[in-house]
Amino acid sequence: MIRRLIHIDHQLDESLQSQIRRKLVEGILVGSFMPGSRLPSSRKLAEQIGVARNTVVLVYQTLIDEGYIVSKERSGIYVSDDIHKGWVNADVDTHNIQSKDNFHRFKGQLKTTSETSCPSNWQRFAYPFIDGKYDASLYPVREWRDANNKANTTREIYQWSELQGVEDDPMLLDQIRSKILPRRGIQASSAEILITVGTQQALNLVSQLFVDHSVTAAVEDPGFPEMRELLVKYGAKLVYQPIDDNGMVVNPQLDNCDIVYTTPSHQTPTSITMSMTRRYELLKKAQQQDFLIIEDDFEFESNFLGQPHPALRSLDKDNRVIYISCLSKVLASGVQIGFIVADSGVISELKKLRKMAMRNPPLNNQRAVAYFLSLGYYDAFMMHLHKVFFERWLTLREALNIYLPNCIDTGPIQGGTAYWVTGPAQLDGEYLRVKAAELGILIEPVKRYFASSEHPENCFRMGVTSIPNDKIREGVSKLADLIHLLTADYEEKLDNARGKLLDNRGLAELLPGARLECQMVYGVPCIIELLADGCMRGRTLGVGSEVDVGRWWIENGLYYRQWKLWGYGEIKGFFVIMDGDQMKWFDQNYCFVRQLELKGYLTE
Amino acid sequence: MIRRLIHIDHQLDESLQSQIRRKLVEGILVGSFMPGSRLPSSRKLAEQIGVARNTVVLVYQTLIDEGYIVSKERSGIYVSDDIHKGWVNADVDTHNIQSKDNFHRFKGQLKTTSETSCPSNWQRFAYPFIDGKYDASLYPVREWRDANNKANTTREIYQWSELQGVEDDPMLLDQIRSKILPRRGIQASSAEILITVGTQQALNLVSQLFVDHSVTAAVEDPGFPEMRELLVKYGAKLVYQPIDDNGMVVNPQLDNCDIVYTTPSHQTPTSITMSMTRRYELLKKAQQQDFLIIEDDFEFESNFLGQPHPALRSLDKDNRVIYISCLSKVLASGVQIGFIVADSGVISELKKLRKMAMRNPPLNNQRAVAYFLSLGYYDAFMMHLHKVFFERWLTLREALNIYLPNCIDTGPIQGGTAYWVTGPAQLDGEYLRVKAAELGILIEPVKRYFASSEHPENCFRMGVTSIPNDKIREGVSKLADLIHLLTADYEEKLDNARGKLLDNRGLAELLPGARLECQMVYGVPCIIELLADGCMRGRTLGVGSEVDVGRWWIENGLYYRQWKLWGYGEIKGFFVIMDGDQMKWFDQNYCFVRQLELKGYLTE
Repeated sequence: MIRRLIHIDHQLDESLQSQIRRKLVEGILVGSFMPGSRLPSSRKLAEQIGVARNTVVLVYQTLIDEGYIVSKERSGIYVSDDIHKGWVNADVDTHNIQSKDNFHRFKGQLKTTSETSCPSNWQRFAYPFIDGKYDASLYPVREWRDANNKANTTREIYQWSELQGVEDDPMLLDQIRSKILPRRGIQASSAEILITVGTQQALNLVSQLFVDHSVTAAVEDPGFPEMRELLVKYGAKLVYQPIDDNGMVVNPQLDNCDIVYTTPSHQTPTSITMSMTRRYELLKKAQQQDFLIIEDDFEFESNFLGQPHPALRSLDKDNRVIYISCLSKVLASGVQIGFIVADSGVISELKKLRKMAMRNPPLNNQRAVAYFLSLGYYDAFMMHLHKVFFERWLTLREALNIYLPNCIDTGPIQGGTAYWVTGPAQLDGEYLRVKAAELGILIEPVKRYFASSEHPENCFRMGVTSIPNDKIREGVSKLADLIHLLTADYEEKLDNARGKLLDNRGLAELLPGARLECQMVYGVPCIIELLADGCMRGRTLGVGSEVDVGRWWIENGLYYRQWKLWGYGEIKGFFVIMDGDQMKWFDQNYCFVRQLELKGYLTE
Repeated sequence: MIRRLIHIDHQLDESLQSQIRRKLVEGILVGSFMPGSRLPSSRKLAEQIGVARNTVVLVYQTLIDEGYIVSKERSGIYVSDDIHKGWVNADVDTHNIQSKDNFHRFKGQLKTTSETSCPSNWQRFAYPFIDGKYDASLYPVREWRDANNKANTTREIYQWSELQGVEDDPMLLDQIRSKILPRRGIQASSAEILITVGTQQALNLVSQLFVDHSVTAAVEDPGFPEMRELLVKYGAKLVYQPIDDNGMVVNPQLDNCDIVYTTPSHQTPTSITMSMTRRYELLKKAQQQDFLIIEDDFEFESNFLGQPHPALRSLDKDNRVIYISCLSKVLASGVQIGFIVADSGVISELKKLRKMAMRNPPLNNQRAVAYFLSLGYYDAFMMHLHKVFFERWLTLREALNIYLPNCIDTGPIQGGTAYWVTGPAQLDGEYLRVKAAELGILIEPVKRYFASSEHPENCFRMGVTSIPNDKIREGVSKLADLIHLLTADYEEKLDNARGKLLDNRGLAELLPGARLECQMVYGVPCIIELLADGCMRGRTLGVGSEVDVGRWWIENGLYYRQWKLWGYGEIKGFFVIMDGDQMKWFDQNYCFVRQLELKGYLTE
């Protein structure tokens, strides 16, 4: 029998000793080896399961030390009689309990919670454009293991175990104070920081302290749905602030608010960064109207174009900003370390609430993360992530620009890990999502971000945290085909377009020396100059300006071009229709691609 | 300068490489080594700090890989220019923020929370009789490290990281279901279990779901103060149930309750175990009155005298018991794993509340604890703890019985890790606590356990989880001296005692063949038989009955005795006063020690 119970798997990472031990203990505890029963000798067991005798001897010795088995002289090895001592007698009547309708007893039941629509098997999809999920290649495995090992030496275990109570690990507080906050321009003492189990606990504690039925709170719309839910749960009246290109709008709606919740780094869900002007405007309004600001500083690391703006908390002169952030979600997805920075009086009240909710966040994790920071792993990891996400972010932007130049507008953003995509007006985003999933493409619907049921039907989000860089182009290309298919009836075609189709001669008259301007899908203009000698120059404007060169020519009534870098360096030909000074390009399937404006001619 | 910044400590556990790395990274991040500045060559640095050159080479190589430093050909090693890329500009105005009175904004502020009175430096006290703190020798360091390592292999990290969301680790649920719950007689599917950050979160979530202003909840008095606070916070009207020798009293006060909170295993704070009769009585009442029971199954492992009783949940036929427990506090003090067992409908509501409060408990810890259980470490550890605490528990009981037989009554308990001690009526427990602490003795005052300010002044608690076995006797002996000193004015003395002092002859007439009965401080009678031949026999009654033998004699007007085991096997002499059939013993300082009843004479 024992042979059947102890099956050794030589493919496992687990050592033989550990496998044998685990299976013996399991057998003893579930009663396969009864108390008092005799086990085979080490020699015999070793033979039966095909391992070295010494391996079994060592396992038996540990189990004897631990009291699972006893060795009786000249008689053999037996399962300890005491093994179930302290267990409830097995004859207790444990027949099935009736399931019971407790519904009428639920007093604090939550109506619904907004679920993300990401399927749990997202990893099986070929093109998961899902923000906030991470492909496994990103986990800082080696570094986390090392930090974790350092936090679990005998001496460290003694230290963090003895912190049992309500205080946070002083080492972690110190690391956050000295390594994380200065990047956001924030100075804080340890008494001004509280560690939380992720951002969600931070938002919950802050809502609990500051919100009741007398409070009016402003939130962004579209905005982070979990925060709306929290504010509603604690009784707040909500005011909805729209988002423009500078971030959350500051207007007289805020005048009667007690609390304003905002995500200035990269607005959730649009990824728009709040401008400096808007930041000062918001702080000024807060002072005038005496409201608090809850700053959710989400993904501040992922500002790709230019320096990140300083946190509101760092600009705040009179301590009215409650700053909430967390360590990178990739690291923290399972470990969950978030934190709050605020006035020490506020922190001490929050600490009492936290104690009542769950004492303090697990101290072994606090210490492991403290080492992750102190060993510099976090910084190295952030540099790495920044590089990876920036690359993916640019790849996605480029792909959208190439494959969907006409029918996508991502808005002017400087970073973040997701694009807020506005498709053609006739697009049904939810239908697109379902159809795209059938092709292995996951995109995120945006409905959950809106407070009311009125939301733009043609918007969706595409994130870069979960999709490898080399899958992005293909995914967007397939998505573009699908969008064209779904909106074909509404698209301008070569045969019904307004204006005049140019032939070889028309093209040769119009194009040499022309200066053209078009819009990138990400909201900046692009200037293209077609030199008479067949060379061409391109330049985008705005933050993160790019330039490229290439060549162009006319052939069979089409305008051809090939950039050095842009458009994947591919040769592409277009039919050209002129409508006043508007130039329209159509591809060889007669589909509309892009509209440009003829801005004049080069003078040199 | 670098020599001052990189100080190597050869005494540390940390490797040289790790120390050098950590200090270099720190120097780079805080700006001691500025971006673009040159670092010494590996040869030079190795010389300066006195380590092998290869050590420095390896550190430099890692830092180059990670982007902290760059190696320029034929020029040297430099701090990367990009190091502060992504940081907020240092010229942001970060002068001190005004501290601000936020008091008027606090809406959900907690009035007071009941603090335990244990000083944070309890480990510096020689005799810490504090329950719920643990001396470091108890931590299962090796086993935790092993389980933790297994949970942090690359494959495991991938697994638990991908569980990100709201679900618990299936491996942990399975281990709790199959290894922990059967001991309590409980059967449950994984859908009937929710993992929590310790017991406190479990109690908080359950209160949140079931309590509002319409609810009446019964609690034990004295009882667990944190639960009273939670119920009050969520608006419950409280009913206070007294405790008797069978546990929480079941009486008509419960008739209008919606919820009853109880700690049947070892009542907090008295350690009394609820009898089986009382359990059935409570369940019957619950059915009649249709109330829910919240069963806080605290320290169920520490039942020392006899088998533990089955949990209420295991006896519950109609699913009205919400069962809450946690893994041993020694393991969980930093790691904090608790759990709730209830109807799956209840669990799914609680999961929504938990998601809103903090998503889910850290998954790396869930997996590490799952391994701790599956490898059998938890069982081995529990067997060990049981042995250690049982030993200490008996030592403390014996010491109280010897040194304070007259003025202590611990009540009839079968286990737990603390004694509820009732001193002489005149004792001021709070004053005793202060004075005892001055002698290095920590005892726990009981005021916080009582709902009203009316509480017995002469009670306190003594726990065994934090004090080594070999300090217990000495601690109790010193405490006894202090109690005698504080209550000397009220004690009976030899010269004012009622009755007649016996001389040698009186003793010789009375004692041979006598059967005496006295009460142990822990609530059971003890029969002592003085045989005519100078031998004696002793036997305690009740659960966990003990026997001993010894010898007795008369000398200089005193009765002398020496047990084989009891009384530490020491010889002790007493003055004896007879008052009717009551016999009173006084020590050689003329202080009253113990009262016995003469029950008759041996017939054989």
